[in-house]
Amino acid sequence: MHHVTNIEARDDWATVTWSDGLTQSLYAPWLRDNAQDAETVHPGNGQRLIDVSDIPANPTFKSTELATDGTLAVTFEPDGHSCRYAPDWLRRFAEPVADPFAPRLWHESFTVPRFSYDAITTSTDVERQWLTAVARDGIALVTGAPTEPETVCAIAELFGFVRHTNYGRLFDVVSVENPTNMAFSAAGLMVHTDNPYRDPVPGLQLLHCLENESDGGGSLFIDGFQAAERLRHEDPTAFHILATTWLPFRFRDANVDLQARAPLITVDDKDRVVTVRYNNRSIAPADIPASDLPDFYRAYRTFSGLLRNPETEAVLRLTPGDCVVFDNMRVLHGRKSFAKGRRWLQGCYADKDAILGRLRLGIRDTASLQL
Amino acid sequence: MHHVTNIEARDDWATVTWSDGLTQSLYAPWLRDNAQDAETVHPGNGQRLIDVSDIPANPTFKSTELATDGTLAVTFEPDGHSCRYAPDWLRRFAEPVADPFAPRLWHESFTVPRFSYDAITTSTDVERQWLTAVARDGIALVTGAPTEPETVCAIAELFGFVRHTNYGRLFDVVSVENPTNMAFSAAGLMVHTDNPYRDPVPGLQLLHCLENESDGGGSLFIDGFQAAERLRHEDPTAFHILATTWLPFRFRDANVDLQARAPLITVDDKDRVVTVRYNNRSIAPADIPASDLPDFYRAYRTFSGLLRNPETEAVLRLTPGDCVVFDNMRVLHGRKSFAKGRRWLQGCYADKDAILGRLRLGIRDTASLQL
Repeated sequence: MHHVTNIEARDDWATVTWSDGLTQSLYAPWLRDNAQDAETVHPGNGQRLIDVSDIPANPTFKSTELATDGTLAVTFEPDGHSCRYAPDWLRRFAEPVADPFAPRLWHESFTVPRFSYDAITTSTDVERQWLTAVARDGIALVTGAPTEPETVCAIAELFGFVRHTNYGRLFDVVSVENPTNMAFSAAGLMVHTDNPYRDPVPGLQLLHCLENESDGGGSLFIDGFQAAERLRHEDPTAFHILATTWLPFRFRDANVDLQARAPLITVDDKDRVVTVRYNNRSIAPADIPASDLPDFYRAYRTFSGLLRNPETEAVLRLTPGDCVVFDNMRVLHGRKSFAKGRRWLQGCYADKDAILGRLRLGIRDTASLQL
Repeated sequence: MHHVTNIEARDDWATVTWSDGLTQSLYAPWLRDNAQDAETVHPGNGQRLIDVSDIPANPTFKSTELATDGTLAVTFEPDGHSCRYAPDWLRRFAEPVADPFAPRLWHESFTVPRFSYDAITTSTDVERQWLTAVARDGIALVTGAPTEPETVCAIAELFGFVRHTNYGRLFDVVSVENPTNMAFSAAGLMVHTDNPYRDPVPGLQLLHCLENESDGGGSLFIDGFQAAERLRHEDPTAFHILATTWLPFRFRDANVDLQARAPLITVDDKDRVVTVRYNNRSIAPADIPASDLPDFYRAYRTFSGLLRNPETEAVLRLTPGDCVVFDNMRVLHGRKSFAKGRRWLQGCYADKDAILGRLRLGIRDTASLQL
């Protein structure tokens, strides 16, 4: 473990030197605001007990000292507040820490990770591997689950909570030979994410197969993050346009008229792709300035082309007892057409944060402690 | 109603002239992609049946004609696709349409709108007024509700769905005279939004009073959108910094370690404030470059000051049967301290889109049809 070898302070800045030569600049108001003593942070739950307005407007360093136990002892002006900072705590802010649950793009030989229902429900290790796969690969298949209706909700509740929507707690996807509605047809569906017209979009989708006597109807999945990164690589201008142009999305039926605006691709403060939304059925007419339309349409078509010809795709022919869990903000799904036969899936939505919230516990105080 | 007086086209652009003199530029690929015929849009549900990749790459206008019924008849090259566009449909994209449910900031004499439980459950008109208040003012009080436990979930289910979280379907806020935990104390709490460490953040919070024998403990609410707009007006630089600087948020207990990154203020593509997140207890140490910290801290303190000294605040002393419903992405809540007495609230979270999704139905085909 690295240790601090020196600290020097002047006015509102201090410079820490680490044993590996790294130097770190500390700003006094930041350090004062994030004091780790029991007056500032609740010793039991780690929550901050003060607000930024509770500290002096312009704290400066009165004294800094490297204690013999390696901690940093600091006293601030003008309030004379003293506290100690552990080197492990400080070091977190000196260099980025790899997130063990960060998404990793599908590679050429990617296959959907598979876990047996028995194993995920009886072994916490396997449960952990399953949830880690969902977090990193954006998809995992549970096999051998019960084929009772509503099992899909029970599987979601193994790790989190069902997101109830206007479609109910769960929804049925039944294809019959003589469909009365296109949704229940045997036609293929282009890959898409669900509910882009909802804000918040459901972070996870589960699809559980109860019956499948169809002669085709494979479920298609593609990695939207990979498609977005490919777009960024091959056509950075198109990527930038799609990441900054907000589109309207809409769904209406007899009971709701859901509308939302968002880009097709969203990136976070570190320029990482965090959401892909794409659904040809519910993208409403772009209401951007007419002069922006030619560039937008060129970018939009380019991305659509990548989604139709992805570098990698996964095809699963779900059999009864299979339940696929996938990241609805990343993985696009669709289905191949099939000629005949009954096919009954039950789906539900859930949120992702429960998964990461539980996974991080297992490695508390090590790599995941980024905050 | 306005009507089209002329249309002229050349290559991939057309110009429409309206009876009030407005002109509108139409880009052929946009118009072709949004064709309104039954091959392109499902006549029953309005969903698009094609993807942008299903139309020619560079559609142009073959002919445009103003029909005697006022519709626009268009034929495209190279696929020869013909369809008609209603002037009402086209006009929507020529000028912005006011959203009757858009947020309106609290004014000096703002008081929380009140609705009786009996009225909202027996009159669809009053139910509509209630939901409109939540959409526009970000808060509404229901009075005279039953004081049975779990009523809070039943009230959420009048319009939408409970968002189940690690705190359960509902959570109890009980203050007792000898608290074992600060959350159950009689201390004041600075105004905050709930769960900024969650992604997605719950869009709505409901707090239902079952008992209140305390001698104070008024619930404070402030309009975070108004505070954000005040910041934008008084200190545009600070506003810009807070709207573009992502902060880490965190909550951990024995069961979850929830982390999320987001700005304190988020704006949409039209530069409207759409989310305010602020919670001194769960804002984790800012992990932005040290050189950005001085400007960030100045902006952060300025915003904190506005939240402590808002232009308007609402104070409600909840009595048994009261249930306050508020927008957790906009309205900050807190409580005044109180000296003694039992106080029992039950809370739950829900999502906002159900409210707007239902409200829009009542004015379908008029002003809300923005998409």
